[in-house]
Order: sequence, then structure tokens, then C-alpha cells
Amino acid sequence: MAACTVYSTQSLRTNISIPTSSKTNVGFHQKQVLFFTTNKSHNNRRTNSNKRYLITCGAGDSQTIVIGLAADSGCGKSTFMRRLTSVFGGAAEPPKDAPELIKPPKILVIEGLHPMYDSRVRELLDFSIYLDISNEVKFAWKIQRDMAERGHSLESIKASIEARKPDFEAYIDPQKQFADAVIEVLPTQLIPDDNEGKILRVRLIQKEGVKYFSPVYLFDEGSTISWIPCGRKLTCSYPGIKFFYGPETYKGNEVSVVEMDGQFDRLDELIYVESHLSNLSSKFYGEVTQQMLKHADFPGSNNGTGLFQTIVGLKIRDLFEQIVASRAETPVGAAKA
Amino acid sequence: MAACTVYSTQSLRTNISIPTSSKTNVGFHQKQVLFFTTNKSHNNRRTNSNKRYLITCGAGDSQTIVIGLAADSGCGKSTFMRRLTSVFGGAAEPPKDAPELIKPPKILVIEGLHPMYDSRVRELLDFSIYLDISNEVKFAWKIQRDMAERGHSLESIKASIEARKPDFEAYIDPQKQFADAVIEVLPTQLIPDDNEGKILRVRLIQKEGVKYFSPVYLFDEGSTISWIPCGRKLTCSYPGIKFFYGPETYKGNEVSVVEMDGQFDRLDELIYVESHLSNLSSKFYGEVTQQMLKHADFPGSNNGTGLFQTIVGLKIRDLFEQIVASRAETPVGAAKA
Repeated sequence: MAACTVYSTQSLRTNISIPTSSKTNVGFHQKQVLFFTTNKSHNNRRTNSNKRYLITCGAGDSQTIVIGLAADSGCGKSTFMRRLTSVFGGAAEPPKDAPELIKPPKILVIEGLHPMYDSRVRELLDFSIYLDISNEVKFAWKIQRDMAERGHSLESIKASIEARKPDFEAYIDPQKQFADAVIEVLPTQLIPDDNEGKILRVRLIQKEGVKYFSPVYLFDEGSTISWIPCGRKLTCSYPGIKFFYGPETYKGNEVSVVEMDGQFDRLDELIYVESHLSNLSSKFYGEVTQQMLKHADFPGSNNGTGLFQTIVGLKIRDLFEQIVASRAETPVGAAKA
Repeated sequence: MAACTVYSTQSLRTNISIPTSSKTNVGFHQKQVLFFTTNKSHNNRRTNSNKRYLITCGAGDSQTIVIGLAADSGCGKSTFMRRLTSVFGGAAEPPKDAPELIKPPKILVIEGLHPMYDSRVRELLDFSIYLDISNEVKFAWKIQRDMAERGHSLESIKASIEARKPDFEAYIDPQKQFADAVIEVLPTQLIPDDNEGKILRVRLIQKEGVKYFSPVYLFDEGSTISWIPCGRKLTCSYPGIKFFYGPETYKGNEVSVVEMDGQFDRLDELIYVESHLSNLSSKFYGEVTQQMLKHADFPGSNNGTGLFQTIVGLKIRDLFEQIVASRAETPVGAAKA
């Protein structure tokens, strides 16, 4: 395993700058997985919240891939990372230090530096993910956290959201169009005029034509489907669960969307849904359900955020394995020729 | 093969009367398939339109089953019969005389005598079908036939529909609730405010819990699904094709509904749809498509009426085979005991 260099990017803000050493070291056969967080300085309970890393590994390290992960503050990046780590066999704990995130290093996720904002950074990425929480849900979440748990006033919450907007709109939001997968979190449509933000409609927007990434689908690839699994074989409590699948255009890209509205009450609902999704890249039947149950205490484990984060984790593992296999094949092919 | 007795019922109207001989002859092991048409005296081009039959076969004939078929005038009974005959290997021609409909006699369909109206007649039936054309579509069809082709006035068409209503509402319509399968024909919902009656939304309403009849479903039995097959893998011309599947309550009965809105333009659309329907009771992949193409000149071969008539034909063949097999098993079991 080649030695990796960790660049602290604690002071980096909106200006994207890649240390020269990383640019020269990173080529097809030396790709790693790097995390770039899009977090800015903000209140955060975790002590490592303002640490940013840029990690480069030397030539010969063909066991790592590079993933970009972008999201606004408080939008579930760390939960996503814990799910991803768990899928790769890690402890699913928040990383204390990036290079130790997954041992042996397989996936380096770029979380900082606005990974999909700058084209030079985008070129480093094997895959990119954007966690997109709609304003309504973001507001409901902040009310819950900052008002109910921390005693902030409604006015101060509104002001803090307004203060973040210019930065969000200039640097974070534009990354969506470059993401290979977007997890979009919206208010439910199962309850008319719901604004509690407790029941969520979550959309997994998957870019078509991405190498090593085959989008998840429901029943019939390429068609348009809505599915209410709750019925004769499966009963769900109010307001039920509704899925949607279909081709769409998203920010000018051809995508396939899988959508879940509602939440799981019981294990049988989860496994039933898993059994009807195709292209999950799971290693065994029920792996998604197993992962979701293993981390039932994580936020969103009973709804589409947990489901789609877990699925994206499986897709990244699959991507990793395909890339590593293709790198291994090249010398074999050369030897045979 | 036991000799069959044919009772002419030409004079029978709304009073249901079963000749005594048939009631005494018809038992579980002597069931046949009988046609009872619900046609009344009305203008009809076919010379045999006013002939009604009640057919009974003697004991020992275990190769026939009894089907009831009800519909208002001009609602597709003869087309359905031709499709059914074709599925059973017949010539798919309008029957010249009922006992010769299918050789060797397998299915005797009761078309007259309002088969599901009288409980004594219902008891004879192994399976019952109602062809339900909505008033809007019926009107559009009559306009087409009586006005465009026969030169009748709009007023006379309206008057003839009105004249039929009391009889229809008293004797024909009430049979729906007893039918094991209803094929309901409605205006399309793909084109807003369409009243041309050319593009149809057709629903196959299948009663649950009917012995030897396992309802056709789409993708996931017992759930609720809408499916637009036209997309990346299949392209369809305007206004497209839309399917629905789900559990419902119909006239107090628990049913499963499969619905098709739109029409087929090309073979690949038909085979694609067939490949995604389950429980079709076909003998080989593509049998529904083959039957539809074989009779492409029949009315409704490009839409849900043809599709569901063909499917009901397959289900009746399956029912026939199961019933005949169960009759054959009984003496074997007795010998073994």
C-alpha cells in the first residue's frame, strides 16, 4: 500500500485550490477516494467539524477511488459517511481522522473544497453525490434542532438561514448539476399541505451513462411507475408508503429517479420494498434491510433518506470493486498480448 | 362423449326458466359450457341473432364447463366468443349453431337468459363474464355504426338508447355484481375531455377467491401500481399507453383490477406489455400477442378490449383444464383409498 499524504484544508473557504502534489500524483491508476466537505464554519457539536482534508496517495496504490460528497450544512453528510463506512465493513462511527476512516483505505471521500464546483476537482472524482434538502424540510429540521433543542428563537433561525443563502446559492447549489447521484429530500405528498417535515418524500436522482454505475430501478427499467406496496400482502400505517420510478431530465442531464414517500414502521415493509428494487448491487438478499436495521438509531433509518444513502453506499462499493478489477485486468491483458 | 340436448330458447325474454330436464341433468360431473346471450330482439345483421340455446349434456360428459357471458346489445359478445374459440383451437368464426361451436365440445357458454340474473342459473356456472361498455363509449360506438354507416339520425340513436334503458337497468346491469370477470370499457383519460370514443380505457375487474381462477397482475400481486411502459426501452405514439393495477372493491366484492388506457401501434408494444403481466395462464411466451395478431382485424385488437378478452380466454382455458383434471382425479383417488 502506497503512503498517503494528508493536506489539512482547515483554512480553505470558497476558493478551490488543489495542492500541486495532488494534481501530479493523481492519475487513473492512482486514484483514491477523497472527501471534500462543503461545510463552512458554523455551530457544530462535533469537534472535527472544521477540519478539511485533501488526501493524495502515491503511484501504485490501485485500491482506492475518489468520491465527492456535497451538501449544505446539517444535511446529513456525516450520517451518509457512517452508512458508507458500514457498507465497506467499517465501524460506522464518525471519522476521527480522514485517513483512518476505512482500513485498509478503499474509499477516500472529498467532503470539503466544494468537490463538484471546480472542473479540476471534478476530474479527480470517480463518483459524486449531492445531498439536497429542500428549504421547507431544512427549515423544519432547524426549527426542531435549534428551537426545540437549543432554545433559539424563530427569528434567529430565519436570520441564520437567510445569512447562509448567498454562499449556498453561489457555491453549493450549483454543484447539483455535476453530481452522479442526488438525494433530494422534500415534504411528503401523502398528507395534503403537510409542513411538519417529519414524513419525507425522498428522491434518488441517478445520472445515466456514468461508467461503473448502473441506476437502481423499480420493476421495469426505463418505464414510468408508481407503486403503493401497502395492500393485500403488506399493510402499512397511515399515511402509507408510495414509490415512484421513471426517467427524467435533471439540470440538463438524463437521469433515472427512484422516489419514496412515507416511512417504514416495520421490518417486513423494508424487506418487501428491497425485494422489489433492482440493480441494488447488494451481495446477498436483504443486505439493504440488514444495513438499515444495524443502524436503526441513525437519522432517517425509517425513510427514504436512510434507504437511498444505504443504496448509494452499495453502489459505491460496487463501483469500487469494478474499478479495482479493471485496474487489475490491464496488466494481465498486457501480459497476454 | 354423452349426447347433448339443445333447447331452443328463441321465445325466452326476461323471465328466466330452466327446462326441468336440464336442471336434473346438470350436476358437478355433468357440467357443460352453455352460452346465455343477453341480447334482446333488436336490429342485428346476423341471421342467428334471435336464436337462444340451452344445452344440457348427459352424465359422464366430464369434458365440458359452463360459462356465463352477459352484456348489453352491441357490446362485443360475438367478438369475445371468436377470441375464446380461437384460444381453444377453434376457427374463431361466429358460431353457426351453438353445439358445434367448439369441437370436441369443451366450453359451453350461456349467452342468453341473463346468466347471472337468476341464482339457479348462476349455480350452473363455472365462470361468468360481463362486458360492460360505459354509456359514453356505447353512444360513440352507436353514432359510428348507426349514423355514419347506416344513415340514422342522431335523434333516433338517442331515442333507441333511451328505449333500451329500463330493460338494461332492470335485467342486464344487475348481473355485474355476480360476474367473476368484468371487462369495463371507458373513455380514455390520456386526452383531457375526450369524447371521440376511439381511444379507450379498459378495465379487467377480476373477482378474488374464485376457484380455479387466479387473477392476472402487474409486477407485484396485491399492491397498487401505475405503469407507463412507453419510455427509454419502448416508444409509443401520442397519447401513449398507461396501465394500472390494484385491489379494489367492486359491487361489494373484493376484486383485482388491471387497466389499460391507450392503444397499441406496433407489435413490440404488445409483446412488451405481455412480458410484464403475470398469471396470464398462457402456454408459451407471447401467446397473448400471437392471438391478438392472428385476429388483428377483430374490433379492439389494438386496445384493452382485445387484450383483456384474449386474457380472459386464456384464463377460461386454464379453468377448463383444472376442472377436467380435478374430475379425473376423483375416481383415481377413490380407487386408491
